[in-house]
Amino acid sequence: MRLAILGAGDVGRSVADLAGEYGHEVVALADSTNAVIDADGIDVEGALQRKRSDEPVGVDDPDDVFDIEYDVLVEATPTTLGDAEPGFSHVERALEADRHVVLANKGPVAERYEEMRALEADSEGSVRFEATVGGAIPALSTVEDCMPENVTAVRGVLNGTANFILTRMAAEGLDYEHVLAEAQDLGVAEADPTFDVDGTDAALKFVILANVLSDGGFALEDASVEGIQNIPGSALNLAAEDGRTIRLIGEATREGVRVGPRLVPENGPLAVTGTRNIIQIETHNAGSLHSSGRGAGGPETATAVLSDVNRLADR
Amino acid sequence: MRLAILGAGDVGRSVADLAGEYGHEVVALADSTNAVIDADGIDVEGALQRKRSDEPVGVDDPDDVFDIEYDVLVEATPTTLGDAEPGFSHVERALEADRHVVLANKGPVAERYEEMRALEADSEGSVRFEATVGGAIPALSTVEDCMPENVTAVRGVLNGTANFILTRMAAEGLDYEHVLAEAQDLGVAEADPTFDVDGTDAALKFVILANVLSDGGFALEDASVEGIQNIPGSALNLAAEDGRTIRLIGEATREGVRVGPRLVPENGPLAVTGTRNIIQIETHNAGSLHSSGRGAGGPETATAVLSDVNRLADR
Repeated sequence: MRLAILGAGDVGRSVADLAGEYGHEVVALADSTNAVIDADGIDVEGALQRKRSDEPVGVDDPDDVFDIEYDVLVEATPTTLGDAEPGFSHVERALEADRHVVLANKGPVAERYEEMRALEADSEGSVRFEATVGGAIPALSTVEDCMPENVTAVRGVLNGTANFILTRMAAEGLDYEHVLAEAQDLGVAEADPTFDVDGTDAALKFVILANVLSDGGFALEDASVEGIQNIPGSALNLAAEDGRTIRLIGEATREGVRVGPRLVPENGPLAVTGTRNIIQIETHNAGSLHSSGRGAGGPETATAVLSDVNRLADR
Repeated sequence: MRLAILGAGDVGRSVADLAGEYGHEVVALADSTNAVIDADGIDVEGALQRKRSDEPVGVDDPDDVFDIEYDVLVEATPTTLGDAEPGFSHVERALEADRHVVLANKGPVAERYEEMRALEADSEGSVRFEATVGGAIPALSTVEDCMPENVTAVRGVLNGTANFILTRMAAEGLDYEHVLAEAQDLGVAEADPTFDVDGTDAALKFVILANVLSDGGFALEDASVEGIQNIPGSALNLAAEDGRTIRLIGEATREGVRVGPRLVPENGPLAVTGTRNIIQIETHNAGSLHSSGRGAGGPETATAVLSDVNRLADR
């Protein structure tokens, strides 16, 4: 498949880097101001070099990406809330041209799910978005394979930054501010970590899961969300004395979405450590399926994108 | 899709029972001596009632199943080793008639993998076999989505009977014979539990995984296999003093297959409890993915069969 990649951050670059391994070709790579476009396949290594040197990825206009021949638009621009723009319009343009879309951008899937599915219904192209939930963990394809109707709930830890912070607070008896600074030094937390620590990032993912279970009906504003910024070190010590720890746990059911800190058994499946994520899928016929792995990262998320591309290629 | 189901044990019956929920129709259900065949769809409830009353499933000849119009042959007859017959011939007949095949029977996939793929290559039909490894856990589809080339190893616990026995031995300080009897009473172990406790069942599953990773090259005789029958209760006590326990662990790489009892950290991911199974998929780009769930059972395995049918229907 020929991939047109919008977004040249960690995910977009990793998709470009790994596409060849998965048997696909990159015909465009665009960041917010520039693009490199070549219908015969771009020089991926050259483009990645330029980005590493903080130079523009190319000399083309990102808007021109939509005019070339491609099979799959990979939407890996930063997640935006509310109207989910410009990501939503990118999805719209690709579907109106009967192209496939693979999203790593959570915005359109969390905030405008029904509109996205309506555009897909009128298009020859299909939309997939495994990369929006759980990075390398095949969360959505597992729900899809079980069939959403057979899934009663999905629960888990889907934000690695918050999980890392809580793991370190418990392990070292340190307070939140201290561990957040450590996480930022390590690149595990962003300079502006708000969406990770206030639960928004996790909530977007559980909203997406709720939309998949119920075929729409949810947006971020419908989620009940509490973050980890107010957890004192003493709370973790107290939990440990009872054989428990604290994790930022989310849950999606047909009734809604909740994200917040919860006490969990310290050796139980939900007490994943570091930046690892886990989801537990509760099913009618097959009990509880657990899937854990690396929830974030350029290459990790890129494998989810390319796995979606492969599924589209199979049809 | 119209399903022709060979095998009326737990798995075959559960597939028949759940097919409707997944949008598919059952046109034949056969055990070793009888069949019920109806091109317009069999009366599933009637057939299941007869099996529950230990009556023949129908009055038709199982051989006539191959003469009707069906889309997918579900091969759920008992796993046999060596020549994997009669299962292999069933697969062969379906593929020669350009029909799809979904296997729950491990024999053809473990023992005659390259021949099976060769028949598939000459057929309009495709072969899938999620149900042969890990019951409800989407083990093979996760490896498939990652792409086998990106997987370096698969490790885990894939036999629930052996795992249950070891869990109970550790929990209660009881010896093997005692817990085996308990497992048989509960229906967790068969009257003849040999293949579960001597590691053969787990080895077949890891041989299948090795065949998927290397596109063939392995059969049961290539696996290094040791079971749990000789583990004394004292070994588990000793392990516990060191924060460990014992599990029957298997591993498949491109080099080969090994199954045997191993010491594992008692709170680690491999120390699944009871009849639960877990696989750890080691990948090049996405770290380690873990998937755990119910590894066996009629409905659980049926969900894997029907998930394969859905994937075939998608094409």
